[in-house]
Amino acid sequence: MKYTYLENKELEVAIEEFVTRLKDTKNFLTQEEIEVSEALGRIASQAVFAKISAPHYYACAMDGIAVSAKDTFGATDTTPILLKKGRDYETVDTGDPLPRAKDAVIMVEDVVVVDKDTVKIHSSASPWQHVRQIGEDICQDEMIIPSNTKIEPAAIGAMLAGGVGKVRVYKKPIIGLIPTGDEIVSPRPDPKAGEIIEFNTSIFSSMAEKWGVDSKTYPIVKDDLNLIKKSVLTACKECDLVILNAGSSAGREDFAFRAISETGDVLTHGIAIRPGKPTILGVVGKKAVVGVPGYPVSGIIVMETVVKKVLEEMVKSTLPKGEKLEAILSRRLMSSLKYKEFVRMKLGKVNNRFIATPLNRGAGVVTSFVKADGLLEIPLNKEGVEAGQKVQIELLNSKEEIENTLLINGSHDPLIDEAYDLVRKRDYKRFISSSHVGSMGGIMAVKRGETHLAGIHLLDEATGEYNRTYVNKYLKNQDVCLIKGVRRSQGLMTAKGNPMNIKDILDLKDSKIRYVNRQKGSGTRILLDYQLRLSGIDQESIYGYDREELTHLSVAVQIAAGSADAGLGIYSAAKVYGLDFVPVCWESYDFITTKEFIEDEKVAGFIDVLKSKEFKDALEKLGGYEISGIGEVECI
Amino acid sequence: MKYTYLENKELEVAIEEFVTRLKDTKNFLTQEEIEVSEALGRIASQAVFAKISAPHYYACAMDGIAVSAKDTFGATDTTPILLKKGRDYETVDTGDPLPRAKDAVIMVEDVVVVDKDTVKIHSSASPWQHVRQIGEDICQDEMIIPSNTKIEPAAIGAMLAGGVGKVRVYKKPIIGLIPTGDEIVSPRPDPKAGEIIEFNTSIFSSMAEKWGVDSKTYPIVKDDLNLIKKSVLTACKECDLVILNAGSSAGREDFAFRAISETGDVLTHGIAIRPGKPTILGVVGKKAVVGVPGYPVSGIIVMETVVKKVLEEMVKSTLPKGEKLEAILSRRLMSSLKYKEFVRMKLGKVNNRFIATPLNRGAGVVTSFVKADGLLEIPLNKEGVEAGQKVQIELLNSKEEIENTLLINGSHDPLIDEAYDLVRKRDYKRFISSSHVGSMGGIMAVKRGETHLAGIHLLDEATGEYNRTYVNKYLKNQDVCLIKGVRRSQGLMTAKGNPMNIKDILDLKDSKIRYVNRQKGSGTRILLDYQLRLSGIDQESIYGYDREELTHLSVAVQIAAGSADAGLGIYSAAKVYGLDFVPVCWESYDFITTKEFIEDEKVAGFIDVLKSKEFKDALEKLGGYEISGIGEVECI
Repeated sequence: MKYTYLENKELEVAIEEFVTRLKDTKNFLTQEEIEVSEALGRIASQAVFAKISAPHYYACAMDGIAVSAKDTFGATDTTPILLKKGRDYETVDTGDPLPRAKDAVIMVEDVVVVDKDTVKIHSSASPWQHVRQIGEDICQDEMIIPSNTKIEPAAIGAMLAGGVGKVRVYKKPIIGLIPTGDEIVSPRPDPKAGEIIEFNTSIFSSMAEKWGVDSKTYPIVKDDLNLIKKSVLTACKECDLVILNAGSSAGREDFAFRAISETGDVLTHGIAIRPGKPTILGVVGKKAVVGVPGYPVSGIIVMETVVKKVLEEMVKSTLPKGEKLEAILSRRLMSSLKYKEFVRMKLGKVNNRFIATPLNRGAGVVTSFVKADGLLEIPLNKEGVEAGQKVQIELLNSKEEIENTLLINGSHDPLIDEAYDLVRKRDYKRFISSSHVGSMGGIMAVKRGETHLAGIHLLDEATGEYNRTYVNKYLKNQDVCLIKGVRRSQGLMTAKGNPMNIKDILDLKDSKIRYVNRQKGSGTRILLDYQLRLSGIDQESIYGYDREELTHLSVAVQIAAGSADAGLGIYSAAKVYGLDFVPVCWESYDFITTKEFIEDEKVAGFIDVLKSKEFKDALEKLGGYEISGIGEVECI
Repeated sequence: MKYTYLENKELEVAIEEFVTRLKDTKNFLTQEEIEVSEALGRIASQAVFAKISAPHYYACAMDGIAVSAKDTFGATDTTPILLKKGRDYETVDTGDPLPRAKDAVIMVEDVVVVDKDTVKIHSSASPWQHVRQIGEDICQDEMIIPSNTKIEPAAIGAMLAGGVGKVRVYKKPIIGLIPTGDEIVSPRPDPKAGEIIEFNTSIFSSMAEKWGVDSKTYPIVKDDLNLIKKSVLTACKECDLVILNAGSSAGREDFAFRAISETGDVLTHGIAIRPGKPTILGVVGKKAVVGVPGYPVSGIIVMETVVKKVLEEMVKSTLPKGEKLEAILSRRLMSSLKYKEFVRMKLGKVNNRFIATPLNRGAGVVTSFVKADGLLEIPLNKEGVEAGQKVQIELLNSKEEIENTLLINGSHDPLIDEAYDLVRKRDYKRFISSSHVGSMGGIMAVKRGETHLAGIHLLDEATGEYNRTYVNKYLKNQDVCLIKGVRRSQGLMTAKGNPMNIKDILDLKDSKIRYVNRQKGSGTRILLDYQLRLSGIDQESIYGYDREELTHLSVAVQIAAGSADAGLGIYSAAKVYGLDFVPVCWESYDFITTKEFIEDEKVAGFIDVLKSKEFKDALEKLGGYEISGIGEVECI
C-alpha cells in the first residue's frame, strides 16, 4: 500500500496553469468551413461580412402602386390627382422590385380605382415612402458578426440574407471518456454484488451535449496500468480532451496518476475543491487529460468547474451556464477552510423570498443532483455560512420552475411522490420539492417561513391525539391550517415469513434481533421511543438503535437485504419489498400550512390532487392507508 | 384586389382557444420507449421508478479493512487491538462488497500493519462506518422522476444506477416548415432583383433545434392556392405542427388563409401583437397549422409567442427561455393601445444600472435580432413607456454577456466594427454594443450615464476645432476624458468615374444631382450644413436633402446602386464599393468617456486595441485615416 501525495492547489491557479500550458502546445482547435444553415450553436472563428446587401434591390414595402413622388405633389382630398397605368404608376406587391424611374409606393388602401387603367389619389407621396432601401437590413461588406461569436438563429438568417452560404467555425471539440475500474460494469438491470454500474460517462457525455461539444466513450478499462495507458494514448489521438474517470483518488489501485505521468506530464494532482479534490490535470502529447474522481457528484463538479473552463478556452466562447439567484440560506452550512466547496441546494420561493436548503453532501449520491435546483459555492478560507444569510446560487433549473415549486418539508411518506406525479400530470408547469427532515423538522420549517407545507405525524403521548398538540405548542403565534392527510398503519417490518418470529415491540429487546432505526426528529423515531417507554424497554438494549435511515423505504430495503431483522415503518414500505408486517398502531399523517398559503395556487393544486379519484386509487395500490376526510382543511 | 378582414384577437385568448381545440382533437404527441443513455432533453411521459437499489449491495466506502465493529470495541491509543487476517478482518477497496458477517470498514490510514496477516488499530469502529448502505442513493421502487419531466444529465445517471435502461418519453414533435411566395428563392450569393432569399425557415428550424424539437423544411411553394393546399396536407400528414410562412398578410396574394380554411378550420386570423399581427391559427385534420407572416422579425416573434406555447403543451414541458432582467429604459417608447408589442432591446450595464435601448422596430430587419440582447413586452392598452422607467426584459443573451459588454453610442465609423473584432479575438468574454445615434446622440448618452463611450466628430464652426467645444458646452458638469481617435477624410462619394463630374459642394445645387443625406444629429449632417452655409447654398435647393441614411456604408450603397449621385461620407466607405471620392475636409473622430470608466476593464481593453499594431493595419486597409496619437487619453 503506497500513496501518492495529493496537492491542494487553488482551483483558479490550477486552471490558469493548465490553460497556459495547453495554449503553449499550440494545439487548440482547428477550423472548418460549414454550411451556414447547419451552423447553429457553432463558434465563428473569424468575422463574417455580408457579400450582398439585404435587400439587394429597391423593394416595394407595401402592396399598391409605384409612382414617381413628384407626380403626386399637390394631391389632397379636394384636389385629387388621377394617375394612368404605365405612364404614371405600376401595380406592385410587397417585395417587388421598384420599377425604374419610380421612387415611392402608395399603399393600396390609399388608392381609389377609377377604371382598369386609372387610379385616383388624395394625398401626395413623399420620395422613397414604402420603399425598402438597399441595405436597410445589411449593407454589403458590413460585419454581421465578429470573430469568436456563437451562431444563433437570427445570425443564420442574417448571413443567408447577406449572401453568405458558408462560414468558418472552430471544429467541435470531441471529449474522450475513459471509464476504468475492475468493479465497473456497463449499465444493466441485474448487477452482482461488487459490480458497480458505470453511468458517469453517460452523465458526462450528456453534459457535453448540452454544451454543444461532442464526446466519444471508450470501453471500460480494467485496473491495469498498461491497458489504461494504451487507452489514454488512443483517446489522445482521436479526441481534443480526454477524461480518465475513476482511479484518481490516492488509493491502492490508483493507476490514473501513473498512466498520465508515464505518457505525458501531470501539472496538478489535487485541487482545493470539495467534492472533486483528487483531480489530475495533465498533458499527453498536445492533448489535455483530466483524471476525474469516480464518485458521480465529484465527477459532475469537476466537469463543471474544470473541464468546462478548458473547453471554453478551446472554443473561445462561454458555454451555457445557469442563472444566478440570491436566496436565504435555511440552515447553517459548515465548510472546510481548505477547500472551495460546492453544495447542491434545493430552492423554493416562500413569502417572496427564495429559500435555499442544502442537500445531502455525499459524493456518491447522484440523486442529489436530480433533486438539486442550484449550486452554492463556499469560497476557500471560509468556515461556512450562517442560517439566514443571503447567498448567491447558480441555478440548475430555471427561476420560473423554482417559483412554481411547492415546498414540502417534514416527515417522509411515499404518498408524496404519488401526489407529485399526479400534480405534474395535471400541470407540467408545477413542481414539488420535498425534504425529508422529519416531522419536527417540518414544524420548524413552517415556523421559520421556509416551506409551504409540512407533512407531520406527531403523537401527543398524554392524550393519544396526533399533530394538533404540537401545532398548538410550536406554532402558537402563527395562523396554521391543518390539511387532513391519511391514517396509516405503522408496524414492525420483518423479512418475508418473519423468520425471527417477531410478535411485538417487546421482542426487540432480544440482542439477536438486529434493528434498523429512523433518524432523530422523525415521527417514526418518536413513535418507537414512545412504544419502548410503554413497554419499559431501554433504548440501549436494542441492537442497532443507532443505525439510522432517512425514509421508510430505506429502512425496508435494509431488512429486505438481510442486514437487519426489524424496523418500525409504514405498511406501504413493507409491501414494496414483500416484507412481513407486524402492525403496531394506526397514526395520523397530516399536512400543515399557514393561512397565507391556503389560497396559494400551488397548495390549492396539491389539495385538489389529495382529494382526487386518481390519488385514492394510488393510495389503495400502495396499501395501509385510511383516507376518510382527506384534503379537508381546518384553520386553527 | 380583395382583402380578408383581419381580427385583432388578444394573444392569450388566441392561444387558449387554439390549445383547447387541439386538445379536443386528442392528437397530441404519442409516446415511445428509448434508451436512457439517449434520452437527454426528452420528456418522460410517465414516472420512472428504480428497478434496483443503488448501491445494490453493502459497499465499502473506503480503502482499508472490513471488520465486525464489536471486535474493535475498546481499542485506544494505549490499548490497541491486534486483528488477524481472515479471522478478524479482510482487506477491502472502495466499492468492494462488504464481506459477510462484517459491518464496518476501517480506513487504511488508521491501520498499522504489523505483519502480512496482522494489523493493529488504535480506535474502535462504530457499526456501519464507511459502509455505503443499500439504497443510500436510490431505493428500489423509489420514484426517480415524476411524469412530464425533462431528462437532464443527472437523471440519466440516476436511472442507469437504478437499473433502468429504457424510458418512455413523448415523441419529439416535428414541425413542418413551408415557405411560400413567387418572389422567394433558396439562399444564394447572387439573387436577381425581385428575388427574395428565403432564410426564415432556417431561422425557424434553428429555433426548433434550440427548443429540442425536430423540423422538416418543405420546398418553396409558388403563390398557387392548389399547390399550397397540397403542401399543407402533405406536411400535416408528416408533422405534428405546420408553419405556413409568408402570405398571411391581407394582401393581394394572400393564399395562406384560403389554403388553411379550405383544408381545415381557421380559428384566428389576426392577433393583437406587433410585430406578427397577420398570424393565422388553424387546424387541418388533427394538426395545428400556423400561418406566420413573411417578415423575419414578425416570424421570430410569432414563433416565440405562439408556436412555442403550443409546443410546450404538446411536450408537457416548458421550453428553454431567457432570463428576466430589470433595466432602465433609455428612451421613451411609444406603443399602440391596440397591440401587445415586442421590442428588441440592446442592454448594457453602466454605473451598476442595466440600461435598455430600443432597436430598429422594422419587421424586415433581421440584423436587429442579431444585435438584440433582449425583448421588451409592452402590454395591450398601454400607450408606451417613459424614458427612465424600470422595465422587465426577457434576455436573449446571458446576463454575464451583458455585464461584459462595452456600450458605444454616437457617430458611426466602420472602425468600430474592426475594433470589435479585435476585442473579441483578444478576449472572447468581451462584447461591444454600438448604437449609431449620431455624435450629438452620443454626447447626450454620456450626459445621461447611459453609455461607456461615445464616438463623436463635432466641428466648432467658430474655431474650426473638433469635439472639445461640444464637450465643454454639454458635459461641463462631468469629468470627461477624451480618447484620441483618428483624423479621417470626409468627402463627396460619387459613382465610379464621377459621371456627373462633381467637383465640390457647390455642385450639389444642381437639381439633376440626386443627393442622399445622413440623419439629423449626425456629425456628417452637421458638417454638410456647415459646408452649405460656407458656400451659401440653401438646403431646400438640394434634391434628396431629406433622404436619410444612418451610416456611411448605407449612404455609399445607395450611390453604388445608382439611386443617388452624391452623398457626404468618409473615404473608407467609398472605398468599400469602389466609388469615386471628392475630398472636402479632414475631421477628428474621437471617443469620449467619463473619468469613472477610464479605469474600467472594458474601456481599457478597447483603448489597448486602438493602440495595437493589428488595429493600425486594419485602418490602413480601410483607408482614409490618420492615426497619430490614437488611444491617447486626456481627462478634461
